Amino acid sequence: MFESAEIGHAIDKETFEAEVPALREALLEAQFELQQQKRFPVIVLINGIEGAGKGETVKLLNEWMDPRLIEVRTFDQQSDEELAHPPAWRYWRMLPAKGRMGVFFGNWYSQMLQGRVHGLFKDAVLDQAIAGAERLEKMLCDEGALIFKFWFHLSKKQMKARLKALKDDPLHSWRISPLDWQQSETYDTFVHFGERVLRRTSRDYAPWHVIEGADPHYRSLTVGKILLEGLQAALKRARTPSVPNTAPLPSGVDQMSLLDSLDMSLALDKADYEEQLITEQARLSGLMRDKRMRRHALVAVFEGNDAAGKGGAIRRLAAALDPRQYSIVPIAAPSEDERAQPYLWRFWRQIPARGKFTVFDRSWYGRVLVERVEGFCSTDDWMRAYGEINDFEEQLSDAGIIVVKFWLAIDKQTQLERFQQREDIPFKRFKITEDDWRNRDKWDLYRTAVGDMVDRTSTEISPWTLVEANDKRWARVKVLRTINQAIEDAFAQRDKHDKKGKKDRKTK
Amino acid sequence: MFESAEIGHAIDKETFEAEVPALREALLEAQFELQQQKRFPVIVLINGIEGAGKGETVKLLNEWMDPRLIEVRTFDQQSDEELAHPPAWRYWRMLPAKGRMGVFFGNWYSQMLQGRVHGLFKDAVLDQAIAGAERLEKMLCDEGALIFKFWFHLSKKQMKARLKALKDDPLHSWRISPLDWQQSETYDTFVHFGERVLRRTSRDYAPWHVIEGADPHYRSLTVGKILLEGLQAALKRARTPSVPNTAPLPSGVDQMSLLDSLDMSLALDKADYEEQLITEQARLSGLMRDKRMRRHALVAVFEGNDAAGKGGAIRRLAAALDPRQYSIVPIAAPSEDERAQPYLWRFWRQIPARGKFTVFDRSWYGRVLVERVEGFCSTDDWMRAYGEINDFEEQLSDAGIIVVKFWLAIDKQTQLERFQQREDIPFKRFKITEDDWRNRDKWDLYRTAVGDMVDRTSTEISPWTLVEANDKRWARVKVLRTINQAIEDAFAQRDKHDKKGKKDRKTK
Repeated sequence: MFESAEIGHAIDKETFEAEVPALREALLEAQFELQQQKRFPVIVLINGIEGAGKGETVKLLNEWMDPRLIEVRTFDQQSDEELAHPPAWRYWRMLPAKGRMGVFFGNWYSQMLQGRVHGLFKDAVLDQAIAGAERLEKMLCDEGALIFKFWFHLSKKQMKARLKALKDDPLHSWRISPLDWQQSETYDTFVHFGERVLRRTSRDYAPWHVIEGADPHYRSLTVGKILLEGLQAALKRARTPSVPNTAPLPSGVDQMSLLDSLDMSLALDKADYEEQLITEQARLSGLMRDKRMRRHALVAVFEGNDAAGKGGAIRRLAAALDPRQYSIVPIAAPSEDERAQPYLWRFWRQIPARGKFTVFDRSWYGRVLVERVEGFCSTDDWMRAYGEINDFEEQLSDAGIIVVKFWLAIDKQTQLERFQQREDIPFKRFKITEDDWRNRDKWDLYRTAVGDMVDRTSTEISPWTLVEANDKRWARVKVLRTINQAIEDAFAQRDKHDKKGKKDRKTK
Repeated sequence: MFESAEIGHAIDKETFEAEVPALREALLEAQFELQQQKRFPVIVLINGIEGAGKGETVKLLNEWMDPRLIEVRTFDQQSDEELAHPPAWRYWRMLPAKGRMGVFFGNWYSQMLQGRVHGLFKDAVLDQAIAGAERLEKMLCDEGALIFKFWFHLSKKQMKARLKALKDDPLHSWRISPLDWQQSETYDTFVHFGERVLRRTSRDYAPWHVIEGADPHYRSLTVGKILLEGLQAALKRARTPSVPNTAPLPSGVDQMSLLDSLDMSLALDKADYEEQLITEQARLSGLMRDKRMRRHALVAVFEGNDAAGKGGAIRRLAAALDPRQYSIVPIAAPSEDERAQPYLWRFWRQIPARGKFTVFDRSWYGRVLVERVEGFCSTDDWMRAYGEINDFEEQLSDAGIIVVKFWLAIDKQTQLERFQQREDIPFKRFKITEDDWRNRDKWDLYRTAVGDMVDRTSTEISPWTLVEANDKRWARVKVLRTINQAIEDAFAQRDKHDKKGKKDRKTK
């Protein structure tokens, strides 16, 4: 994998200086079109051997191109806010918007490599990290991002010479690398694991480019040309409308849907409701104050038919809690800044820190519901969203976040009655709009979309709960009870895990 | 100040229950209009005596109103990211957008009171904090925000009874207050300093409301009604167009401007330029690596005539630096999310953390330049901006941030030549637009605006540097040299200060 980058590539000064002006102009032109189009962001990942010219090359690119459109990001020590969120959160919040270019130093690859070289974990965990990186990049590319991955390489001999030279250079002595490259062994293990990482993550949509780093002219010109060609090709693609290549889901051969299996007559009388509501609210209040909650966070997703009672259920939930513990995020059409990012970006921004609780009133599932039904995104987009969403929720779950998802279902007649009632009551009339009536006409399309959504995204780590919501009381109690159960399950699992850990340590 | 809140206000259950439904409906209606109008945000500050029902009242408001439009924020321990920025940064990043309501617990008042009660500082520092709060609130209100300040009060006797009751309540025992209210003295000093704070910060645009907290019915109903009346009045104001009440600046009696005093013939020949440029770049590079830089940050603002060479000067600056240290923020028309906030919000977001450097390519001065000249904001808005900007920069400076501001000036003939040249060179043509030609027609208006800007915002803590930019070489070197000088001055001042501190400690 690295053989071609150890053969002493070099370019003489004259050739370099002759080629640079045209390259610069072309890069500036491309960058300008990128900014005008605002169709996709560019992400440049910088990795490789210490001393192979990573920093120098980025510096040069900033000189060649318009640095006002480039964001260089370093990810080293995690801040305490980053530590309280899932690992990918720090990258999500630094993503460049469409039309801009982000250069990521110390990215996900550096982190997994350093961890493995330091022996913090074994190959299995490295492979998990590799798979995570693949999924992230695939998703970013599907959302339009153009990703360049550069590995700056040196042979061991070249590196030693380079480090020696750098050591004597006062301009570089201040830089501290997280790995001790002076140790001969570091190079070997780094290259060994680097090879594994590159092999597995070089993909058609985001290939690695290995650059021999010894000669500054060669490496600068090579990187510049790769960027230019990649940019030009992507700009061209963006100018031509894309042809969908995914077939939509087949419709079933009968009209049976999961939603038909619900017993819509389930109901609670007032006395039972009041008793059970208070019981469940007290239970939730206690669970949220449990000290084990500090190692978790809670995400509750509310989806459902219009007028199914999401707001009322959320209010009963909120009533059990200290307002300082939770936040409620209402999801409407994305803003301009949100549209300039992958669709999951605005949800990543709202993911609760450890110990906190976020309620999403509508959510990322809009992609496979309203966006699918109304044609706001392509079939390709919503078809791949199922997998992306499962991956997103798995990351939350891995970070200790409990994810609970509700579909509040009512039948068509109940919806009609509630719409009419809303139009009659003054302080409820803001809850009903033209859109609601329009959506009602698409009842069956939504019904299919909901069925597909549940089939494809109800998973062991974050199952859907279908809530029979013709009776509001029944729905509210079921919501609370489900959340409580989920928290208790998470605590129990954690306790079991901790106990096992203790036992394991004892037997040693 | 607190007398009326110690007389045993109470409301019986029947009256309370009779009044709540209408109040709730009216609050929901007002909240709905707030959200539809999207004309202003609502900020609710919650302060007062421990046990006076702060948390309970906010909880109730969340039940009465639509909690999806309310963001409750607690500010306790500062995160490490917050500690690396000026103190107000944490509040700016949590401001609710227009149409939404933010409830701030543990806000700026709690911080100053706790600090003073704990004896971390004396009255003079408390008074500085008070003045800072006043300026912040005045600016927020001028930008349209509606601020409610609630002080929940209890007499000492009431508080003791309440704390005793809370102690036995398992639902409350988990809450830890930063002040030890069990100590009798804490109450006295807290009320003493609280009185000072309220007295000085109760203003027409953001008055304090002192609420006796002993009786839940009384306090809830009172807070609800104050919110309702305030909201309704503000919504009404927002519906009627405002009448400007500020006279614009008088134009001078002659046509002399500060810009005329520049010697536009200043220039550097190529050899001098190259030598001086390299010298200044090396100097900057060294200064940015100086370990004293870790206690500072750097903000450089670039304003200037179109085609004055801002981009080129910024590139020469960037060339001296490691791309990981700086970021360049190009400022164009604000996005939708940015327009939903006070105009300084998007600049606060980009303020560098300690040790970092942010270059603003155009800046907050747009308010008194393009927004003034083009009429994008009212005379009231840009007239008050001078003071707001000075206050903003003082906060940066107080936090150790070095602020350097450049106006790159060219004459009208030079601009014409550069415009024509840009239209001819392919990779420069993206630098010239219709807008540029239009702005040129308003040359004199901009000239006046620049003069006023410099007169009103060139201060000792962050002076303007006017750069004679007809000769690009001269301009680039002057920019670099000015920045270097500013950093060295800041270091020298810090050294002097540290030395003095050491000496003071010795003499003790």
